[in-house]
Amino acid sequence: MIGAIYNRNQVNFSVWAPLKETMVLHIVSPKEAKYNMKPTSEGYFCYKLKDATGIIRYFYQPDDNEKDYPDPASRFQPEGVHGPSQVIDHARFPWEDANWRGIASHQLLLYELHVGTFSDEGTFEGVLSRLDDLKTLGITALQLMPICQFPGLRNWGYDGVYPFSVQNSYGGPMGLKKLINKCHEKGLAVFIDVVYNHLGPEGNYLGEYGPYFTDKYMTPWGQAINLDGEWSDGVRNYLLANIAEWFVHYHVDGLRVDAIHAMFDNGSVPFWEVACAYVKELERELGRRLYMIAESDYNHPRIIQQGSGGLGFDGQWLDDFHHALYTLVFPEGKKFYQDFGKIEQLSKAYKEGFVHTGEYVEARKKRFGASSAGIPGSKFVVFNQNHDQIGNKGQGERLSTSLDFERLKITAGAVILSPYIPMLFMGEEYGEKNPFSYFINHGDPQLIRAVKDGRRKEFGTFMDKEDVSAPEDPDVFERSKLNWDKRTIGKHAMILDWYKKLIKLRFSDPVFSNFNKKDIQVNVIDRLLVLQRVNEGGRDNTLCLFNFSEDETMYKIPIGFPYWKELLFHDHSPVYYQGTSVAITPWAVWILKTLEAQEEVY
Amino acid sequence: MIGAIYNRNQVNFSVWAPLKETMVLHIVSPKEAKYNMKPTSEGYFCYKLKDATGIIRYFYQPDDNEKDYPDPASRFQPEGVHGPSQVIDHARFPWEDANWRGIASHQLLLYELHVGTFSDEGTFEGVLSRLDDLKTLGITALQLMPICQFPGLRNWGYDGVYPFSVQNSYGGPMGLKKLINKCHEKGLAVFIDVVYNHLGPEGNYLGEYGPYFTDKYMTPWGQAINLDGEWSDGVRNYLLANIAEWFVHYHVDGLRVDAIHAMFDNGSVPFWEVACAYVKELERELGRRLYMIAESDYNHPRIIQQGSGGLGFDGQWLDDFHHALYTLVFPEGKKFYQDFGKIEQLSKAYKEGFVHTGEYVEARKKRFGASSAGIPGSKFVVFNQNHDQIGNKGQGERLSTSLDFERLKITAGAVILSPYIPMLFMGEEYGEKNPFSYFINHGDPQLIRAVKDGRRKEFGTFMDKEDVSAPEDPDVFERSKLNWDKRTIGKHAMILDWYKKLIKLRFSDPVFSNFNKKDIQVNVIDRLLVLQRVNEGGRDNTLCLFNFSEDETMYKIPIGFPYWKELLFHDHSPVYYQGTSVAITPWAVWILKTLEAQEEVY
Repeated sequence: MIGAIYNRNQVNFSVWAPLKETMVLHIVSPKEAKYNMKPTSEGYFCYKLKDATGIIRYFYQPDDNEKDYPDPASRFQPEGVHGPSQVIDHARFPWEDANWRGIASHQLLLYELHVGTFSDEGTFEGVLSRLDDLKTLGITALQLMPICQFPGLRNWGYDGVYPFSVQNSYGGPMGLKKLINKCHEKGLAVFIDVVYNHLGPEGNYLGEYGPYFTDKYMTPWGQAINLDGEWSDGVRNYLLANIAEWFVHYHVDGLRVDAIHAMFDNGSVPFWEVACAYVKELERELGRRLYMIAESDYNHPRIIQQGSGGLGFDGQWLDDFHHALYTLVFPEGKKFYQDFGKIEQLSKAYKEGFVHTGEYVEARKKRFGASSAGIPGSKFVVFNQNHDQIGNKGQGERLSTSLDFERLKITAGAVILSPYIPMLFMGEEYGEKNPFSYFINHGDPQLIRAVKDGRRKEFGTFMDKEDVSAPEDPDVFERSKLNWDKRTIGKHAMILDWYKKLIKLRFSDPVFSNFNKKDIQVNVIDRLLVLQRVNEGGRDNTLCLFNFSEDETMYKIPIGFPYWKELLFHDHSPVYYQGTSVAITPWAVWILKTLEAQEEVY
Repeated sequence: MIGAIYNRNQVNFSVWAPLKETMVLHIVSPKEAKYNMKPTSEGYFCYKLKDATGIIRYFYQPDDNEKDYPDPASRFQPEGVHGPSQVIDHARFPWEDANWRGIASHQLLLYELHVGTFSDEGTFEGVLSRLDDLKTLGITALQLMPICQFPGLRNWGYDGVYPFSVQNSYGGPMGLKKLINKCHEKGLAVFIDVVYNHLGPEGNYLGEYGPYFTDKYMTPWGQAINLDGEWSDGVRNYLLANIAEWFVHYHVDGLRVDAIHAMFDNGSVPFWEVACAYVKELERELGRRLYMIAESDYNHPRIIQQGSGGLGFDGQWLDDFHHALYTLVFPEGKKFYQDFGKIEQLSKAYKEGFVHTGEYVEARKKRFGASSAGIPGSKFVVFNQNHDQIGNKGQGERLSTSLDFERLKITAGAVILSPYIPMLFMGEEYGEKNPFSYFINHGDPQLIRAVKDGRRKEFGTFMDKEDVSAPEDPDVFERSKLNWDKRTIGKHAMILDWYKKLIKLRFSDPVFSNFNKKDIQVNVIDRLLVLQRVNEGGRDNTLCLFNFSEDETMYKIPIGFPYWKELLFHDHSPVYYQGTSVAITPWAVWILKTLEAQEEVY
């Protein structure tokens, strides 16, 4: 095990530093002391501290240079990224979720949230106090933006520098456990976002210990993590231990792994193949359903395939779906996603997953992607907005500030009734108008400047409406908080009601979470998209009609009409029937199902 | 098509420069002229020159900057790497090999040669004049070290800078075609070594045209080739066109692709998967057996697997086999290959292929490799020395300067009678004593210095006996030439005879080229290694005994004894029989076969 492991008044300290000659353990509280650690195999230094009592805080001193550095596997940084590490006794938390078995993929509906801006408090407690609202909404899993220790008090979390440590200002390890324990009690799963492709620029002392990073490969954030070079075993072990930490000690249900496309690996056995297999083992051992979900910019089906070259992830975020949907409801969006905008692309996203499957993509200046046709829908997470798409452009505008009521409703329906795992971004369920901006709280002015420059470089076209406020401004953070009072008022309440109806409908009938693509047909008539599906048994024909048009569109109902019943109708205006043809009103969402034999004719 | 394509007095010029505004074709002979080229799709510029006669030499001027650069796809550089490109009419060569169908893998026995040092002439003509010797030796395919245009007159070829162009000083395109034509007439295949992972440091003007290289990935030679970034389609097309060039216009039988581990590729469809599939198509189209052989430092089985994540190479060089064998016959070799030296490793190399299959490898400071067990032997090329192992250490010593006669003979037997495709390095067949050193002939003194520093950095331990002579010294080159007079004299003649016997034996009986690993058993008794195999039909039990020991080793012949006949015996000293046990003399090679029923009892 890596880090400081507490066990019955004894602490086993273990730190990896394969190129260092010596390592000193420097205890700074409750009583100052120094110990020479013992080098063991494969580059680790160990020390067993006996009669450990009180709150133990410590540093390490690599190569006995008298300089204190926090533990790369620190479980807690009570004083922030530059302060001492603190020993945590995981066994002390009174877990009450022994019967929790996790959640099956057909029951998953994720809700991405940022702890700091979800509530006024900006803490795990703040999330806890809103769980009933989320439960009433109908979502079944939280997807927390990164919660590992980052510099300062305000950050999306992708500048985290202690992958094993829970942000102090959010409530630390105890706060996260309390939240997850309560979620499980309420039947909610908890996914967290882990960032292994880079560490933040401030408080990153890993380089003082060992070759965690390599300059063989470059990422937008600099050196890439060392997964295949000399000493990479230690790096791989570090990451595997981290994965286990969340599942075993925090009872987390799933990891969303940030930007795996920025983790280069030409090792004989890819790290992710090893890691995903390891999580499968953990799943059996823990007796709970666990998920590994990738963020990938590759359009590689092998990421979500098992065996023979597949990495074995349970799923990945499907950005193509977002781009295809967004550009349909917001044509100006083609400025950001120039290769999207055709309804056939959304149709392909529903049928196959990846939209770009080998054709030339202007934004990438190359042929891009490979087909994911035939891969079950449970392997993809879809959304009409997430933290990136909102926060990484202009002024952090949510969809609700770009789209009218009708378009918001159709985008919600398109996601929630998709044959994929839907994900909402906090606040979209009631059309929150507050922005979700990019914010940081670094200590160094030069670094702040560098961050701004870097963002302008990375997000190019997305930044033409430049942030008026600097990311380090505390107001930018405050303005990004959800306005919970809004959700009961006017159109916000109507949107919330629509979301609840959609979610209820999704879970009311297994046909909607049938991930088997063979049971799904997608048809496009002008700008009308029709999802037709049957249940796995071949029964229960269902039609989802989405009219992505300002115009009324005629549609001929398939044979069997009028033996249909309406499950849900967008409340804007009626649909006109003409024999077996119907006129679908602009931006309508209309959900129909075949009647059972004994039911009344429609 | 890329480059200058001659067709009936017309030349189609086409050059890829996706980020350039304009391109000028500058004809310098037979009559100076300039033409503005026409931009076409995907970043190409084209020009059709009519009434083309005489020897046409040309440059391009990217972005009309008045500076002349040779064609990146030049077919010939008559004046070297900095001079004009010359148009070649491929149709002019009078090929006589219409009936040539290539050579099956069980008939392959490669002979690696360096054109510049193989003969006194140092040209293709020089090779041609020795074909009968090679034919008599018994090898079936030449493996030419790189023959693309490199700077100066002396080079291993890995500093080539015109992948489509044949070295002028070797005899240019015409010389290579003549050689291959004659080889095919004599039943010899020709493989060439192609270098796509980097270009040499002198005369490399590709950067003036387009993003052929990327700084996303770094190689020992600097920027990596751009296989997956923006504009990579053009780079991929360039390489595919190059692959076709050799097979189609030079009638080459196989490509040995240099250092594919230094070609990084995270594209949705890996370049090599596309390229190997393309060669399979070419094979059908041309009606000849074509090979794609990789040099890989990965120990990835997927490189030589077909389908589902496999890259689809026909084979790869098996360095592990060399290291395992070399350290057995030359224990000081552990200085270079510290993770080898156990006879069980050679046994594993015979049984499975890769020796390192996931264990910690000290030289690499990590766990390394994955198993290739079950992969047929036709997928691996084995050798007891090649240009790298000789030239990249000390003073270019061949095995013959480190090993005595007995050890030379056992290493030859171990390779030639292996269940793999054997490869010899020129001169080993008669125990050439001349070194094969590293030599260059760059124009720039700074570059020469950089090359020496780079080599010392790259080959670290291998360089402790430093080259006494500088690589740029013409004498180093001259001393590396084969001494053909030696082969008929004394021990040299005896070694040559032994090689001939081994090769004859390999091809005398299909059991020796049975690549099916199921038919092969490997046993180790002390330092005696026994390969026992049966033919694919299950008959013809054959024993190859190799005693890697200074001591006599007792061996119990398997049931059936004495129904064995001796096929070959190392002529040093007799084997002693004691009932069903035999005493194998030090360094003996002894090959036995079961008798047919009608044959005499031994």
